[in-house]
Amino acid sequence: LDYQHVQVPFEITLWIMLASLAKIGFHLYNKLPSVVPESCLLIFVGLIMGGIIYGLNDRSPPVMDSDIFFLYLLPPIVLDAGYFMPSRPFFENIGTILLYAVVGTIWNVFGIGFSLYGICQVKAFQLQDVSLLHNLLFGSLIAAVDPVAVLAVFEEIHVNEKLHILVFGESLLNDAVTVVLYKLFRSFCEMSTIKSVDVFAGVGKFFVVGLGGVLVGLSFGFTAAFTTRFTKDIRVIEPLFVFLYSYLSYLTAEMFHLSGIVAIISCAMGMKRYVEANISLKSHTTVKYFMKMWSSVSDTLIFIFLGVSTIGENHEWNWPYICFTVIFCLIWRALGVLVLTFFVNRFHVNTITSKDQFIIAYGGLRGAICFSLVFLLPDFHRKKLFIAATTVVILFTVFVQGMTIRPLVDLLAVKRKRESAPTVGEQIHIRFLDHLLAGIEDISGHWGQYYWKDKLEYFNSKYLQKILLREYDQPKSSIVLLYEKLERKHAIELAQAGQLGHGPAHPSFLGSAFLCSTGDRTVITDQKLEDTPNPDVLDNMQEILARNLYRIRRTGPAYNRHTLPGDSEPTERAKEILILRHKSL
Amino acid sequence: LDYQHVQVPFEITLWIMLASLAKIGFHLYNKLPSVVPESCLLIFVGLIMGGIIYGLNDRSPPVMDSDIFFLYLLPPIVLDAGYFMPSRPFFENIGTILLYAVVGTIWNVFGIGFSLYGICQVKAFQLQDVSLLHNLLFGSLIAAVDPVAVLAVFEEIHVNEKLHILVFGESLLNDAVTVVLYKLFRSFCEMSTIKSVDVFAGVGKFFVVGLGGVLVGLSFGFTAAFTTRFTKDIRVIEPLFVFLYSYLSYLTAEMFHLSGIVAIISCAMGMKRYVEANISLKSHTTVKYFMKMWSSVSDTLIFIFLGVSTIGENHEWNWPYICFTVIFCLIWRALGVLVLTFFVNRFHVNTITSKDQFIIAYGGLRGAICFSLVFLLPDFHRKKLFIAATTVVILFTVFVQGMTIRPLVDLLAVKRKRESAPTVGEQIHIRFLDHLLAGIEDISGHWGQYYWKDKLEYFNSKYLQKILLREYDQPKSSIVLLYEKLERKHAIELAQAGQLGHGPAHPSFLGSAFLCSTGDRTVITDQKLEDTPNPDVLDNMQEILARNLYRIRRTGPAYNRHTLPGDSEPTERAKEILILRHKSL
Repeated sequence: LDYQHVQVPFEITLWIMLASLAKIGFHLYNKLPSVVPESCLLIFVGLIMGGIIYGLNDRSPPVMDSDIFFLYLLPPIVLDAGYFMPSRPFFENIGTILLYAVVGTIWNVFGIGFSLYGICQVKAFQLQDVSLLHNLLFGSLIAAVDPVAVLAVFEEIHVNEKLHILVFGESLLNDAVTVVLYKLFRSFCEMSTIKSVDVFAGVGKFFVVGLGGVLVGLSFGFTAAFTTRFTKDIRVIEPLFVFLYSYLSYLTAEMFHLSGIVAIISCAMGMKRYVEANISLKSHTTVKYFMKMWSSVSDTLIFIFLGVSTIGENHEWNWPYICFTVIFCLIWRALGVLVLTFFVNRFHVNTITSKDQFIIAYGGLRGAICFSLVFLLPDFHRKKLFIAATTVVILFTVFVQGMTIRPLVDLLAVKRKRESAPTVGEQIHIRFLDHLLAGIEDISGHWGQYYWKDKLEYFNSKYLQKILLREYDQPKSSIVLLYEKLERKHAIELAQAGQLGHGPAHPSFLGSAFLCSTGDRTVITDQKLEDTPNPDVLDNMQEILARNLYRIRRTGPAYNRHTLPGDSEPTERAKEILILRHKSL
Repeated sequence: LDYQHVQVPFEITLWIMLASLAKIGFHLYNKLPSVVPESCLLIFVGLIMGGIIYGLNDRSPPVMDSDIFFLYLLPPIVLDAGYFMPSRPFFENIGTILLYAVVGTIWNVFGIGFSLYGICQVKAFQLQDVSLLHNLLFGSLIAAVDPVAVLAVFEEIHVNEKLHILVFGESLLNDAVTVVLYKLFRSFCEMSTIKSVDVFAGVGKFFVVGLGGVLVGLSFGFTAAFTTRFTKDIRVIEPLFVFLYSYLSYLTAEMFHLSGIVAIISCAMGMKRYVEANISLKSHTTVKYFMKMWSSVSDTLIFIFLGVSTIGENHEWNWPYICFTVIFCLIWRALGVLVLTFFVNRFHVNTITSKDQFIIAYGGLRGAICFSLVFLLPDFHRKKLFIAATTVVILFTVFVQGMTIRPLVDLLAVKRKRESAPTVGEQIHIRFLDHLLAGIEDISGHWGQYYWKDKLEYFNSKYLQKILLREYDQPKSSIVLLYEKLERKHAIELAQAGQLGHGPAHPSFLGSAFLCSTGDRTVITDQKLEDTPNPDVLDNMQEILARNLYRIRRTGPAYNRHTLPGDSEPTERAKEILILRHKSL
């Protein structure tokens, strides 16, 4: 027997196996996951395992290594979150999300830090030796809402899209603020005197850390997209690039002390669109599936380790401090959400209702990030107190808030997510309104989100797509082929009938889009022997519509500041159709 | 900048990235891969990189760590090989493969060892201090044909299936022999006196190491299949189990000093069939894709590292010894193949032609396994000579033999692999002949491979499938659904017409199988807008046929020693059809 030799991979594999088997176990009883969130159950498994290890060895079980957490367990989850982020609601609410993430987190850090300092002044609690700086440092790590915990709970309660993106987006983007404040206070703790210059430098760092993360992420994302242009002959390593580049973006950001989470999210959001178009359908299935699988395993491991690490003798149980920490976390978050939402609602038509505000405040779960940060603290005599307080806050938020949020959502009748995907008709109307609003903003000179979205789309189709896509508008599946065939046929018919002019571009494209959707249904019926179209095909259709409805605006005689109606475009179109007719003859 | 913190994952990611980019680079020029095998190009890249590192640092670049190779790089490749192993040709030629792998390898080890010892006696070469045991030890590591190198070359030259499986199967299964001989000689080197008991124990170990590997692999494989019975509600972690269990089988075998390669191959071959039936189609795509991707990356890394490790000052260039090693490797392999094939051909109708024998002998490439084994040798004064000789043998076989084997295959007009998959008609005839031969063997009392195959199939459907499959004969895709629908319809028609008896089972099943194949074509035509059926659908069809043609034999009034014709089966069938009719009304 030679266990030494295989120990490392063997134990890692066994842990992953345990996590996966635990997951299977929960889902065998259908009632269990519907009452208790999976995260609670996993922590519970971890607690039991920790207890067993503690009982057998008579010493504290190993705590989760912060390096392992930040380098190996966190990136897959954040990558998955970024890659599958619904970009429309995210960018529609980006202002509110940033407000919550930046101002809200700062508010919480200072609120919790100063009020805990107040508690420390009460002589009966024997906490006078905890300085203001240490309290602020503790505030900076305990204030951050945790994306892993939020995702685990909110994925199961299906609240409406806006509410979901507000809580989840905040939990992701507050990373930049947390990183800066945490490192700032930690270095202040080690300095003898603090100059006002240092404080200003700290404020400046916010922008460097956040925007730097975005820049690193986007550059890696675009490089990834560019690389997948050349993988046509070796399809089999395509999925690799998605993972390699996003992981590199995370590591690079961490290396330069930027926000790794922000970097990997920007990388994933930046590359998704182009990578999807470049790689084969099977590669894409693999990417999606593997990402989900990986993040699910990481997530499971994190919660189990959280449970295991809780057992042991790392804690100093000063209950007044711990209880006040929990109370202040709740109070300051509730106050912050109330005040910030008041300002947000003054500038928006779609206001955030008081029910939504309650769920936002209540959904501020803490998780493994706080836990890893508290273990990364430099050694000082009250570290064990901070560890104990962090553990209790995490367990309280995950267990009490996580388990009661679903009944509360039911009780308050919070607006739920709509179950069905929008119909093709709705899609068309949403797109139409987008263009209308972009036009109105353009005319009125108010540069709002629609204007910028439109400009970005223009930049994308004019430059980015040409560099990053292997084949411009490359067809991906049979449905796209069918659509293009119909489109060509229709165009040739129009050309032969001599009806091609300025006007009928819209009906032509819309017509073929509808034709396509009807055509789809017959194909699907044959293929599946059922009546409902499968979601993949619907996704594809909606993508086609999204892409081509933009093209209508570009090619049609829409109002445009820079060109006159009836510019060079119709002649180009005619030329294209001539080529097509030539091919077909 | 904090490079220390992210160093390990960052450098691993960069190496993988380099390997992937190198792969992309080669495939950009279509002519390059068709002349030079990829393995040669990758070693060349490694040589250049090693040269750069050597030039910049002025010291030897790091050699490939044997642990990294055996624990992380080799398993994915072997798993891929085992999972996609064509089981029919493999089991048809298992006897020949085992003969080459066991007897052939022993022949080579002793042949090379003794003749090198003879060379060492020549005074002019200054090698008198290399003992016989050291020569045998060196022989045991240099004799083993390398699966990674063989796969890399043979995948590109497309020789016929039998030739491919003979060389490739040998390279995989000789691992057990290599492990035993290598460890035996290494422990003999460290012993002061060798008793005859030790030699006999060594012979006994062959069986333990080989059969133990098979047992470990099969038990993990069946456990994997059993586990995937319960993953219905969490499809997303299904692919994980395939990887986890096969890796565990490898590690467990290594832990007990059994053959890890044999274990992982048995695991993959044992689980494949059941796992495929249990997991969803998308999970299976992910498994296949990821396996290919992973093995392809490992393979690339191995060859690059081989190149990098070649540069440096680890070598003792005693040219006579090195040249004679290359010559003896070639001669003994050629002789071994000739002698063994002479015996094989006496007992087989399908003989191995002399052209095939030449390619088998010539395709005995050495690779990274030899290289890792030579670095694992205990330190003694001639280790650097062995390293130099191994390096030269590997480079010679990979470059000279790897690059000339394709022209030689063309020149000799070796029978190539047929490009098209067998037609449905051919499939049916092959199956029919299988059953016929099994019946003949059964009657004549000669227990050959058909008899055992039939028994195994019976055991499988009687016991294994019931334990390991979630749903017995679970439908997997629309094509299977369609087939079942047609089958049911036909059965109900027969039942209504009162024709159900002993006779018409065959035409019924065959008829619907053909109906199915016709039905497929229409579906495919709609789906793809083309005339050629796509390979996935064809695979599915052939699987259906394979499965159901077995069932015909079971349910039809075939000759059977243990039951009389017209036993209980027709009543069961009638009952089933009654249930179906009930459902359809």
